[in-house]
Amino acid sequence: MNNPQLNRHGELQHLLTTEGLPVRIMLDILDRASSFLDAAGRETRKVPLLHGKSVFNIFFENSTRTRTTFEIAAKRLSADVVNLNIGSSSTSKGETMLDTVDNLCAMHADMFVVRHSESGAAHLIARHVAPEIHVINAGDGRHAHPTQALLDMFTIRHYKKEFHNLRVAIVGDVLHSRVARSQIHALTTLGVPEIRVIAPKTLLPAAVENLGVQVYHDMAHGLKDVDVVLMLRLQNERMQGALLPSGQEYFKNYGLTEEKLGFAKSDAIVMHPGPMNRGIEIDSRVADGSQSVILSQVTFGIAVRMAVMSVLAGNNK
Amino acid sequence: MNNPQLNRHGELQHLLTTEGLPVRIMLDILDRASSFLDAAGRETRKVPLLHGKSVFNIFFENSTRTRTTFEIAAKRLSADVVNLNIGSSSTSKGETMLDTVDNLCAMHADMFVVRHSESGAAHLIARHVAPEIHVINAGDGRHAHPTQALLDMFTIRHYKKEFHNLRVAIVGDVLHSRVARSQIHALTTLGVPEIRVIAPKTLLPAAVENLGVQVYHDMAHGLKDVDVVLMLRLQNERMQGALLPSGQEYFKNYGLTEEKLGFAKSDAIVMHPGPMNRGIEIDSRVADGSQSVILSQVTFGIAVRMAVMSVLAGNNK
Amino acid sequence: MNNPQLNRHGELQHLLTTEGLPVRIMLDILDRASSFLDAAGRETRKVPLLHGKSVFNIFFENSTRTRTTFEIAAKRLSADVVNLNIGSSSTSKGETMLDTVDNLCAMHADMFVVRHSESGAAHLIARHVAPEIHVINAGDGRHAHPTQALLDMFTIRHYKKEFHNLRVAIVGDVLHSRVARSQIHALTTLGVPEIRVIAPKTLLPAAVENLGVQVYHDMAHGLKDVDVVLMLRLQNERMQGALLPSGQEYFKNYGLTEEKLGFAKSDAIVMHPGPMNRGIEIDSRVADGSQSVILSQVTFGIAVRMAVMSVLAGNNK
Repeated sequence: MNNPQLNRHGELQHLLTTEGLPVRIMLDILDRASSFLDAAGRETRKVPLLHGKSVFNIFFENSTRTRTTFEIAAKRLSADVVNLNIGSSSTSKGETMLDTVDNLCAMHADMFVVRHSESGAAHLIARHVAPEIHVINAGDGRHAHPTQALLDMFTIRHYKKEFHNLRVAIVGDVLHSRVARSQIHALTTLGVPEIRVIAPKTLLPAAVENLGVQVYHDMAHGLKDVDVVLMLRLQNERMQGALLPSGQEYFKNYGLTEEKLGFAKSDAIVMHPGPMNRGIEIDSRVADGSQSVILSQVTFGIAVRMAVMSVLAGNNK
Repeated sequence: MNNPQLNRHGELQHLLTTEGLPVRIMLDILDRASSFLDAAGRETRKVPLLHGKSVFNIFFENSTRTRTTFEIAAKRLSADVVNLNIGSSSTSKGETMLDTVDNLCAMHADMFVVRHSESGAAHLIARHVAPEIHVINAGDGRHAHPTQALLDMFTIRHYKKEFHNLRVAIVGDVLHSRVARSQIHALTTLGVPEIRVIAPKTLLPAAVENLGVQVYHDMAHGLKDVDVVLMLRLQNERMQGALLPSGQEYFKNYGLTEEKLGFAKSDAIVMHPGPMNRGIEIDSRVADGSQSVILSQVTFGIAVRMAVMSVLAGNNK
Repeated sequence: MNNPQLNRHGELQHLLTTEGLPVRIMLDILDRASSFLDAAGRETRKVPLLHGKSVFNIFFENSTRTRTTFEIAAKRLSADVVNLNIGSSSTSKGETMLDTVDNLCAMHADMFVVRHSESGAAHLIARHVAPEIHVINAGDGRHAHPTQALLDMFTIRHYKKEFHNLRVAIVGDVLHSRVARSQIHALTTLGVPEIRVIAPKTLLPAAVENLGVQVYHDMAHGLKDVDVVLMLRLQNERMQGALLPSGQEYFKNYGLTEEKLGFAKSDAIVMHPGPMNRGIEIDSRVADGSQSVILSQVTFGIAVRMAVMSVLAGNNK
């Protein structure tokens, strides 16, 4: 079967999902990302790798934060960056998404960064564009958010060195989370032996066990002896109907407090894709505490996005 | 009489309209545009011609697509580009348009790209600014859209080589279309001997014949033996009152289908300024068919806008 | 007491307010600004001083005009600029302002330009960020707008050469004006011996005399023999309740007409921070008249902002 992310030489053509992404490509991205960070792991600096290239951020769903990380990554690679918020644009004039894409291709785009509220949008665009154009999925519906998962993997490797001896828990609204899906596939591919999800039944997809994860409904058991805690954002704006009693009730059961974090290993790290709902899924003492690596994720996120872009730009055959 | 687009040496000072634009300047822009395209006519590449110059896209009427083409063109010329959507800005604080322009001039703008819903806005600004500043009209009311017309001329020349032996039909909502007006003036200046407009009476301006065009109300006669079909966008958002029975009714009579295109010459090309209303003014089989050069228009549009900007920037006396 | 704007070497670390800003730093900024202007004082040109640096314009309160001046200043210094309108962003998803700032810091920002409707926001951010990051206050509530005041000082010095022999009047809505506060502190520090405010009682802060200014309630006395007239914008959008009878009534009493300007010295200059309400606080004949230096303020504003950014960028210890 054909992997739509790879070209005929088996190289990365698009980054659409971590599902089926070969381990050698994941590791190549992580290694490349290291090269963009200074020795202290705190800064990325400007390099001319994409000079003269045009990167289009096409966001059919608004996200200043994610758009900004890609914009910075592209500018640090010396690309020209054009931001398009398509909500307020041509599609509202009745143009189809693929007409918009065709037009941007005809303007000679080299790379598209796509966010869309519909699952599969980035795949659709990737199948549609000419072979010299690369597509990066910056989040599509509930489906995938591969750069987030890759920066999470980078962060885990940075602090834990290895994947094959880890116990990782993903906590929260797995049902609506493209981040969780992409994390599970990436962790599996990188050889993490034990992946847990912790959530109330109402926030878990049907048959989530089929993804190879262990399911827990309480934090005491779920966090027991884990090395890594991956918190998810409670996406209030995406909730439909009454899946939850209230924020306080949720916090009581699933909010990550210092007390609950005590069930994990003493050197466990705490991660969150942001933006955080403090006092709902995470307590401020944990978010700002010594085990939190949440801001390192952001720094590494720039480096990982630079790495993805430069890997893609190098694969022009 | 004084042509407000030309400086005292007869060179292009502003690009406001194709009406009265000398043929030598039009051809200079088309030739210059060729120089920005690669041999295959598919790509424009970065050049340093406007390095250190500041281009301001001031859009009093929102248009992501048009703004993007100018932004890309300016960045490929290495200019600094600042985008201003003035709807949400100072004019809403009670500042007049010319105060806004004065302020931007005082920030040392080199070039303004202006879109405005009122006819004549770009002329007003051009008359107002200091002589070292250049103004490009990116569409003013129902009046003019000269860069669109010039890229259309570039496209016609690319595919048909000559203008003097062509029969060209403009189809659709001529009444509300600044594109049609600019096309008619450009085609006339470049020596096209036969220009037709095809539209229902309700979508034609009074006395349109005075522009030197032949008027048709049905596609069978209007498209007969033409070399070029210039489709117009049906601008639903600009319609006032009930000029049209319905989209389906319009499509039946004036929508460009393969069948109707059969009236034209077999090598006729089909063009559209975008965004298209598929199934209203154009059928998808035609839009995506072998005679369509719609996406080439977009590619050429970048090169033509680069050409206009570089011609203007070279005329500083 | 510790000045939060200075580092431990007494150098400028952040620009938050003109209150307490040492005179040597003010003069350094004004001198540096001169160096960015051409001999005629009309243009600023591109220099590579901030190449590779990332400047983030984070605007919690929308202002296209102010954001544009900082964007241009940063681009003329060759920085990478990222614009964030936070109203439509993460804070609306429930993230706190400081979480947003932490995230941007983690993306390796070098400089923040901050506008916020709450007084003290820029101070709060400056106290929060790491020592290698610089914060520029682009306006916080009614508190301060230091770059506006510094560009005003630059303009006064440009036209009047000295500060120690001047009589300066500030006219209008002092109560709601961060500009007036910042002007008063800057004028005082630079040694202006007589500063007047002219306004109806309802538009003056309580105990405004404590700032060292003389209070006038009518223009005839207030403008008598002044060298500089600093007009304020009547901020209709910020007025709460009925502080004013009407625009016409205000114009009759406090609007700057040629007649009222006649009370000032014959070579007095007229300034306004923009955008102007013509016919409310200022008559068009004055705004566009020979004593108006309002557009020079805008040009100098780019140079002063370049100066502030380059001074800050040089103070990395």
